[in-house]
Amino acid sequence: MTGYGQFCSMARAHEVLGGRWTLLIVREILCGSRRFNDIRRGIPRISRTVLSERLQALVFAGAVERVDGAHGPEYALTEAGQELASVVGALGTWGQRWLARSARDEDIDLEPVLADM
Amino acid sequence: MTGYGQFCSMARAHEVLGGRWTLLIVREILCGSRRFNDIRRGIPRISRTVLSERLQALVFAGAVERVDGAHGPEYALTEAGQELASVVGALGTWGQRWLARSARDEDIDLEPVLADM
Repeated sequence: MTGYGQFCSMARAHEVLGGRWTLLIVREILCGSRRFNDIRRGIPRISRTVLSERLQALVFAGAVERVDGAHGPEYALTEAGQELASVVGALGTWGQRWLARSARDEDIDLEPVLADM
Repeated sequence: MTGYGQFCSMARAHEVLGGRWTLLIVREILCGSRRFNDIRRGIPRISRTVLSERLQALVFAGAVERVDGAHGPEYALTEAGQELASVVGALGTWGQRWLARSARDEDIDLEPVLADM
């Protein structure tokens, strides 16, 4: 993890994925949601506008593709998107190990967290 | 990666770490920088104000601690912060595998990336 090239790769990945909500959307598609409304239902309090913008950014970044499903448009992970499972997994594991206590303390009140995401 | 509890852990981790710059700062400390100006030099174009705010947020989240060094304050990763190496590593690997081509195409011009981070 040294050198300008590696910093650059990480900075670009951070730019593509570091926006609020983005990895939560990837996680929801990894979990099996494919249609806009299904993805939205899986992410408490995300607005239609923000979800739409983030999906477009993920398509532009080459992590998600929009495909025609039997009942309308669906979103699928590309090969690049599927490989984000390692990032989502590492983030989830870290959160569970280091932030789970405060979640319990606060009775899993997501409001202050998600209001700012 | 299913269930509300796991979503919650990931959402909280995303809240703590998903802000622009945050994981780049963790990466810089992982790479050995400990003093404010050294960390800042490792991250092109970050402002003093933003670095200061993000360091405070990382201290609040329990990932970084401010310690007295021989020549003034230093920043060190806590045990929780050290375990972010897995997240930083996964993000860097993904970026190198999937975003390296566009970096070469653009002659590693970080400006459009970092201006928005």
